[in-house]
Amino acid sequence: MSQAKASHEHLLRVFTKPEGRDSRLSQIEQHLSDNLADFLSRHVVASDTSLEEIEQDFKVSSIPQQPQFVSEHADMLLNKLVANSVNTYSPRFIGHMTSALPYFHLSLAKLMVGLNQNLVKIETSKAFTPLERQVLGMMHQLVFEQDEGFYQQHLHSADHSLGSFCSGGTLANITALWVARNRLLAPTEGFRGIDREGLSAAMAHYGYRRLVVVSSRRGHYSLGKAVDVLGLGREQLVTLPCPGQRLDPAQALAEGKRIRQQGGRVMALVGIAGTTETGHIDPLDELADVARELDCHLHVDAAWGGATLFSRRHKELLKGIERADSVTLDAHKQMYVPMGAGMVLFRDPKAGNAVRHHAQYILRQGSKDLGATSLEGSRNGMAMMLYASLHILGRAGYELLIDKSLAMARTFAAMIDEHPEFELTTAPTLCLLTYRYCPAALQEKMAHQPKLAEQVNPLLDELTVAIQKHQRESGHSFVSRTRFETDRYPQQPINVFRVVLANPLTTEQDLQAVLNEQVRIARNLDWDPELSRHCQ
Amino acid sequence: MSQAKASHEHLLRVFTKPEGRDSRLSQIEQHLSDNLADFLSRHVVASDTSLEEIEQDFKVSSIPQQPQFVSEHADMLLNKLVANSVNTYSPRFIGHMTSALPYFHLSLAKLMVGLNQNLVKIETSKAFTPLERQVLGMMHQLVFEQDEGFYQQHLHSADHSLGSFCSGGTLANITALWVARNRLLAPTEGFRGIDREGLSAAMAHYGYRRLVVVSSRRGHYSLGKAVDVLGLGREQLVTLPCPGQRLDPAQALAEGKRIRQQGGRVMALVGIAGTTETGHIDPLDELADVARELDCHLHVDAAWGGATLFSRRHKELLKGIERADSVTLDAHKQMYVPMGAGMVLFRDPKAGNAVRHHAQYILRQGSKDLGATSLEGSRNGMAMMLYASLHILGRAGYELLIDKSLAMARTFAAMIDEHPEFELTTAPTLCLLTYRYCPAALQEKMAHQPKLAEQVNPLLDELTVAIQKHQRESGHSFVSRTRFETDRYPQQPINVFRVVLANPLTTEQDLQAVLNEQVRIARNLDWDPELSRHCQ
Repeated sequence: MSQAKASHEHLLRVFTKPEGRDSRLSQIEQHLSDNLADFLSRHVVASDTSLEEIEQDFKVSSIPQQPQFVSEHADMLLNKLVANSVNTYSPRFIGHMTSALPYFHLSLAKLMVGLNQNLVKIETSKAFTPLERQVLGMMHQLVFEQDEGFYQQHLHSADHSLGSFCSGGTLANITALWVARNRLLAPTEGFRGIDREGLSAAMAHYGYRRLVVVSSRRGHYSLGKAVDVLGLGREQLVTLPCPGQRLDPAQALAEGKRIRQQGGRVMALVGIAGTTETGHIDPLDELADVARELDCHLHVDAAWGGATLFSRRHKELLKGIERADSVTLDAHKQMYVPMGAGMVLFRDPKAGNAVRHHAQYILRQGSKDLGATSLEGSRNGMAMMLYASLHILGRAGYELLIDKSLAMARTFAAMIDEHPEFELTTAPTLCLLTYRYCPAALQEKMAHQPKLAEQVNPLLDELTVAIQKHQRESGHSFVSRTRFETDRYPQQPINVFRVVLANPLTTEQDLQAVLNEQVRIARNLDWDPELSRHCQ
Repeated sequence: MSQAKASHEHLLRVFTKPEGRDSRLSQIEQHLSDNLADFLSRHVVASDTSLEEIEQDFKVSSIPQQPQFVSEHADMLLNKLVANSVNTYSPRFIGHMTSALPYFHLSLAKLMVGLNQNLVKIETSKAFTPLERQVLGMMHQLVFEQDEGFYQQHLHSADHSLGSFCSGGTLANITALWVARNRLLAPTEGFRGIDREGLSAAMAHYGYRRLVVVSSRRGHYSLGKAVDVLGLGREQLVTLPCPGQRLDPAQALAEGKRIRQQGGRVMALVGIAGTTETGHIDPLDELADVARELDCHLHVDAAWGGATLFSRRHKELLKGIERADSVTLDAHKQMYVPMGAGMVLFRDPKAGNAVRHHAQYILRQGSKDLGATSLEGSRNGMAMMLYASLHILGRAGYELLIDKSLAMARTFAAMIDEHPEFELTTAPTLCLLTYRYCPAALQEKMAHQPKLAEQVNPLLDELTVAIQKHQRESGHSFVSRTRFETDRYPQQPINVFRVVLANPLTTEQDLQAVLNEQVRIARNLDWDPELSRHCQ
C-alpha cells in the first residue's frame, strides 16, 4: 500500500502545493516571461529532424501507470516537444498566419487557466459573459458601424446576439452558413422549419432542387467542410474562377441566375476579405448588390483581412463589408491574440435565433447564456485575451500594426521584383504575397514563348518544392507554399512561395536574409538539366 | 505626431519588452502561482452583484481609440472581471463540472501561448502533431483496449485517425454523428456519397424516409444541435423515456424496429456514460447488441463518465463501451485539464476518412496534418495539457481521484438521506447526485398521498429555485439545479439541486457547510402558507 499512499500524496500536492520558485517548471516560466525570443531560440532546436524521427518520441500507446514528477516531466517537454516545435515568434518565420504575440498574453493565459471559467453559461462564467458580449459588440461596431442606440438595445439582450465567439474561422464559417440555411428554410405555413423537420423535408416544402453556396476558387477549405456538414454536399459549393484572384460579381450573378433557372436556390454568396493564399479581397460592395438581386445571404470570410478595418488608410479595401449578413473574423491572426479566437458576427441581431436552443439545466429560456446560439458548448475564456488587446493596443495601435504590415509587404514585393532570381507571382493587397525562384532571363523567355512556359513551369514547380522543404528543415527561416493559377500563366497552376508579413518584429534585413537563404539553397540543389539549359 | 509616435513605442514594447518582475501583471501572476486559492478568495468577491449591475462595466460598444498601459489594464481586469468571476477552485463550489486544477497547468498555459502552435497542420505545429496523435492513441487504448500492433500500425498513419481533439464534448458529438451519417450514406454504385451529393440526394438514393438518432431523454443538448446542423432535423432525434434514469435497451430496439417498418433508418444509437444531470450510465453492452441488430452506428457520449475507466473498481459500469463505434470524452471534466479539451475517438481507424478533406496549401493528400479529419480548422495545443496530466498523474493517480470522487458522492448521499430536511432524488452512480429541500414529515405524507404530491411538488419547485438562487448569490457555496422526472413521482418533473463531487479538495466539512447554508436560507425564506401547513 505504500505505493498508493505515495501516489495519493503526490496527487494532493499537484492540486494544492504550488511549484517552487526554483523548480524546473518555474524556471521555464521565468525564462519565457523574461525573454521569449531567447527561450525559443535556445530550446526550439533548428534541426532537420524528420517527422518520422520525432514520432519515435511519441509512439507509446499506453498511459503511464505511475505518476511522474513535475520537474521530470518539464524536462521531457523541453526535450521532446519544445525542441521540435515551430518558432512562430521569429521574425524570419513568415510563412503562416501566426506570429509574435504581445508579452501580456503570457500572463493572461495563466490567469485564464487559474480562473478556468466555462463560457457556455453565466453560472460558470459570470462576468465573462458580459465581457464576451461586449467584445462581440466592439467588433460588430468595427464592421457594421451601427449607432449607439443599436448597441444599447442589443449588446446584453437575452433575445439577441451580435455574434458568436469560437475556436476559429472554420467554426465561424460553419456557424454563418448554418444560420443562413436555417433562416432560408424557416418555419412557414405547413412547415415547422428545417431545424425541426430537416433538410429533405425543407427542400421538398420549398420546392428547391438544389441549395447552393457560391464563392471563388480561393475560398477557404472550411466552406467545403461546411456544405458537407450542413448536408448540402460539396457539389453544391460552386467555386468560380477568379481572374486577378478576385470573384467577378457579374459572373457570380450569372451563375446565380443559372442556378435559379434550373430550379435551384442560392443559399449564400461568400465574399472573401483576404484570401488565405494571396490575401486578395473580393469586391464586397458589388457582391452585396448581387446578393440583393439573388435574394440570398451574403457571408464575408474576413478571418484574415478583417483587421484591415482598423486602418483608415486601407479600410476602403473592404468597402461593402457592412452590407454583409454575416462576417467571420479571427483575432488570432492579424489581431495578435493567441490561437483559438475566432468570431462570427451577424448584422441582424435576431439572425442567431435561427439556431437557438435550450435545455433544462442550462440555457433556459430568457437566459443570457452564450451557449444558446453557439455551435460549441463548453468553451474557455479566450474573449478576455481579445478584450485586453483591444484596450492595451487600442484602435490606434492596431492601425499602426496594420499599416506597418502592409508597408512591409510592399517593400518585400519591390525587393523580389528587383531581384534577378525571383519572380513575384501575386502582388500584395494586404500583407500577403507569393513569388517563386525563377531567374529573370527565364522569365523573359517564358513571357515570349507560351509553349516554353508550359514545359518549364512543371520543372520550376519541383524546384519550388525543394527550396521550400530545405529552408523549412534548416530551421533558420520559413515561407509556406501553395499552388494556383496566376494571370501570367493562364490554365497552368504553379507552385509558389507564400509569405505573410504580419510579424511586427520583421525587418528588411530579415527579408533579405530569407531571400539570400533561398538563393543559396537553389544554387546548391541538383537542377533538372533542361531547366539549367533554359536559364542560361 | 507625438501621439502616434508614443503609440508606436508602446506597441513595440508590448511585443519585445517583458513585463517587469514587479509590474502589476507580474504580481498577479506570482500570486496565482504562489497560492491560487488565496488569489481567488481575495479577488473573486463573494457578492450578490446582479448580472445587470455587472453589465454596466461592459456596456461600451466602441473600441478604445488610445492604448492603455498594461498595468492599468491589469487593475481593470482584477476589479471588473476577476472580482465577478466564479470561484471554480473552491471546494464548496460543487454545482458544475469544472473544479480545482493541478498547479502545473498554470505554467503550461503560459508555455502553450509562448509557443502558439497551430495544430491544423504539421508546418505550424511540428512535434505537437505526433504528441496529439499519441494522446488520442492513449485514450483510444483506455477505451478500446486494442493490442500493441494495432497502435503501431495506426497511431501515426497518414491514412488513419484514431480520433479528433476538439474544444469540447459538443463538437465531439457533432463530429461523431457527422462521421456516422457520412458512413451510412457512403458512395456506392450510382451515388457519389452524401459528402458530395448532399442529404436529400442520399436519402432518395438509399430510399430512406427518415434518418433517426435514438437516445434517452437524458441525452446532452448537443445531440439536438447535432441533428439540426447535420440537416436531419430535431424531430429525428428520438429521445426515449428512461425509468431509473437509464435507456431501456428493449425499448430502444422496439423503437428502432418501428422506425424501420415505417421506412425510416436508425442512423445512430447514442448511449450515455454519465448523464449531465444525474451521472447515470446507460447499459452500454446491451445497447451494443441493439445497435448490431439495427445495423447502426453506436455512439457513446462519455464526456463526463469516460474517466471512470481509470478505476479498476468502477470501470465495470462502462462495460460495452469498447464495442462503440465512436466515443466522446472531455478531459476538462474528470481529467482535471483546463477548459477546452474534448475528444472523439473512433474504434475503426478508417472511420474518420468519411469526413476527410484536402486543400492545396495545407492538408495535402498523404499528409499527416490533423486538420484533414477534424471539424475545427486552426486549433491550439491543448493536447499538451492532457499529455502532461497523463504523465504527471498517471493511471494510478487518476484511479485514486476517481475512486475518491465516487466515495465522496456516496458519503454525501448518505448525509442527505439521514438529514431530516432533505430528500435524495437520485443516488450517485458516478460522483453526481441530486436532491432537494423537503422535510422528512412532508416526504412521508407525499409517499402515502399521491394527490398531495401533485399539489406540493410545484410549491417545492419554487422553494428549490429560491434556495439555489440565494446560495449562488451569496457566493459562499454553489450547487446547480435542474428539472426532470424521478421514479418516486412519475409524470411529475421536479426541480432539484444538482451536485458534482469531482473537486479533490472537497471535504465532508465542506459538504456539511453546503447543507447548513441551504437550511439557513430555506428557513429565512417566505414560504407559501400551504407548503408551511403541509410541513407541520
